[in-house]
Amino acid sequence: MSTPQGSLSGFRDMLAEQMIPRQAMLEKIRAVYESYGFVPLKTPALERFSILSGKYGEEGDKLMYKFEDQGGREVALRYDHTVPLARVVTQHRDKLPMPYKRYTVGEVWRGERPQAGRYREFTQFDADIVGSQSSMADAEIIAVTSDSMAALGADSLIRVNNRRILDALVEAAGITSPKDAHLFMAAIDKVEKIGAQKALEEISTEHGQKAVALAADYLGVQGESMNKLHALARLMSESEAMNEGIENLKTVFELLGAAGYSENQVVFDQAIARGLDYYTGIIFETSLKGAEGLGSVCSGGRYDNLVKDLGGPDLPAVGTSIGVDRLFDGLQLLGHLKPARTNTQVLVANFDSNSVPEYVQIATKLRRAGIPSEVYYEPAKLGKQVGLADKLGIPYVVLIGSDELDKGVATIRSMDSGQQVEVPVPELAENLQQMLAAAS
Amino acid sequence: MSTPQGSLSGFRDMLAEQMIPRQAMLEKIRAVYESYGFVPLKTPALERFSILSGKYGEEGDKLMYKFEDQGGREVALRYDHTVPLARVVTQHRDKLPMPYKRYTVGEVWRGERPQAGRYREFTQFDADIVGSQSSMADAEIIAVTSDSMAALGADSLIRVNNRRILDALVEAAGITSPKDAHLFMAAIDKVEKIGAQKALEEISTEHGQKAVALAADYLGVQGESMNKLHALARLMSESEAMNEGIENLKTVFELLGAAGYSENQVVFDQAIARGLDYYTGIIFETSLKGAEGLGSVCSGGRYDNLVKDLGGPDLPAVGTSIGVDRLFDGLQLLGHLKPARTNTQVLVANFDSNSVPEYVQIATKLRRAGIPSEVYYEPAKLGKQVGLADKLGIPYVVLIGSDELDKGVATIRSMDSGQQVEVPVPELAENLQQMLAAAS
Repeated sequence: MSTPQGSLSGFRDMLAEQMIPRQAMLEKIRAVYESYGFVPLKTPALERFSILSGKYGEEGDKLMYKFEDQGGREVALRYDHTVPLARVVTQHRDKLPMPYKRYTVGEVWRGERPQAGRYREFTQFDADIVGSQSSMADAEIIAVTSDSMAALGADSLIRVNNRRILDALVEAAGITSPKDAHLFMAAIDKVEKIGAQKALEEISTEHGQKAVALAADYLGVQGESMNKLHALARLMSESEAMNEGIENLKTVFELLGAAGYSENQVVFDQAIARGLDYYTGIIFETSLKGAEGLGSVCSGGRYDNLVKDLGGPDLPAVGTSIGVDRLFDGLQLLGHLKPARTNTQVLVANFDSNSVPEYVQIATKLRRAGIPSEVYYEPAKLGKQVGLADKLGIPYVVLIGSDELDKGVATIRSMDSGQQVEVPVPELAENLQQMLAAAS
Repeated sequence: MSTPQGSLSGFRDMLAEQMIPRQAMLEKIRAVYESYGFVPLKTPALERFSILSGKYGEEGDKLMYKFEDQGGREVALRYDHTVPLARVVTQHRDKLPMPYKRYTVGEVWRGERPQAGRYREFTQFDADIVGSQSSMADAEIIAVTSDSMAALGADSLIRVNNRRILDALVEAAGITSPKDAHLFMAAIDKVEKIGAQKALEEISTEHGQKAVALAADYLGVQGESMNKLHALARLMSESEAMNEGIENLKTVFELLGAAGYSENQVVFDQAIARGLDYYTGIIFETSLKGAEGLGSVCSGGRYDNLVKDLGGPDLPAVGTSIGVDRLFDGLQLLGHLKPARTNTQVLVANFDSNSVPEYVQIATKLRRAGIPSEVYYEPAKLGKQVGLADKLGIPYVVLIGSDELDKGVATIRSMDSGQQVEVPVPELAENLQQMLAAAS
């Protein structure tokens, strides 16, 4: 007899009112990912610590849930889906098609300090293409991200850049140490939050006059994506890195244009830099229109060296990762999620325990006709039974008293309108199907 | 640059060929559970160790993945879904409808010795009804189990008993210690494996002549379920426990009969005993016809004291738990799973990098028409591209050379028949939809 205790701090139970819209959301994303040929992968929650250790910087090693298992092995809970993907590509290479286009959805665990909107267990829904350097793969990763947001009813804006362009800038500014390069990119990344002026001041302090002049020119380029790319190319026409970055983005925007995406959906934004050091090509972030304050709900990019650096084969890769919990919050905020506490469509009221076999028979027939149905377990006052339907949002209650049972009829009450109709029991399923179809 | 290493022993990666049929399987089960009004619940992978400790016997505490987290808290990975359900019912009671009918699917972790078919991470798909003592709830748990197997194309047999009947037997045999009662039930439980003769010998050795005579009478009752129940009632008409058990099962079989389930699907089997001590009423196991050797793929029962014993409110409960991994093996063995390595239906061949925008445009249109489609990323020999379609089982390849592009036509090649047809590009989606509909 233990004292009741709750769930761990930073961990959540998800009850029906979260889970029903959440599952609908995940299914829509999955259908979009599959429409592009991504195939599912599931990896274990636990990995050898040696696989994950050192892959996420100092902070990662600190936040990781690591421990010794029963056999004395050092293990850790999954921290993201990218490192397990690299392990899978290494371990199962002979069984995988190349390019390998996989999606995965699942929890990751990080021992962050619990705070509003931050959890220690959260869900990432990733799609990655391993084994292709094609710009078509880059364009596809952007398109699949845009389509996912559209399938959820959300207007989204994907802002795209290429790390090679930032590399060119760093090079031209005479910045040589990786640490300084990281700081410079972090300053560019802050433009959205603190404004160009303050970001330039930071660059001026940290990296000097040459860097700040270049960054000012770079950030000052205006216009539509293709125009900006042409202008940038002229700014540093000698740089190989710049040309590589520009060429890639021109192809990506050409392909996205051919597929029908507009500047309202995908734009080149030179202030996108992304924090992670492992990106090597295209990088992007996604905001929901009307909920920009949430930050990026879906980001990613190209990471051509990561699989090799993780000890795997030398395979290029590009991917996208949806932050499921943040996206859910955004969709809820924007009213794109249909609230629901149950999937049940019909509650069969219980007036008499002797009639229970008939109630069960009727509910069984409704289920076989594709109508999720429940029988109230105990005979109870009608008010109590209708109250349950009301509380759960079950749209119809079927009433069959003993008189009705004798006559072979049933009454359907619409919870919405309060209206009641009497129908013969054999026609119950058909009537309810029509009512449900009309209401949806 | 770490040395490549594999996944942990006892843990599995699931690649597309497992995941695609597995997801289809889980969706079918979910649809059945939802048709009965069960609502989804998700609980964290990690719980306080104090919540799980001591709930699964000595073995459970030994096999549990437990450790200290970053904040020095004792935590453990989920060992099943039942104890977390009891915690949820305690923690969120005011938010939950009563009876609370919930389903949950997710991994559980047990540090068992890895061996064939045994994993340290495996999936359970549970449905439970908390807060009702009604026999209708018992019948529903049996029905939802039977319907799930039927939805998967499997013929299943659910064998049902009631712990109260076994309690009556134990009492009549003069067995008083819980340990002896457990041993007696374990011997009954072995009848299927070792035969009635050997089980009776074991009972004779352990519990003496009175027990063995009673057990022989008990196991000797023959016939259809209802007849057996009547015969058993006569065997021990004085026992309150026996009468309770018999009354419950008679109602359950009456309701299942009303809903159309036959003796081929659900039977009373007095040799079902179930290992776990916490069952208090109905208990059952499920075998797949043609794959009986796998053992029970889905079992459960009534556990009216568990929620209270776990520190929660005094709420009765009954539930079913599908062993997803074992069920998957059984369905695969029986040929009920459609093998697939991808969901892609069309591969658009790539003959010329200059035509890539057109290929992308075509694939986009196919996707919008509901046809999962991929473009081959690099121009390559047709044989190589068709080879990929063949390897992955993509049924159609669309061929658009530069001549065809000029004429505005495309060739559809069926990978199955090898036949090719030429169609105007604007009619491509419609043609492929018809071909796919005809083939399915």
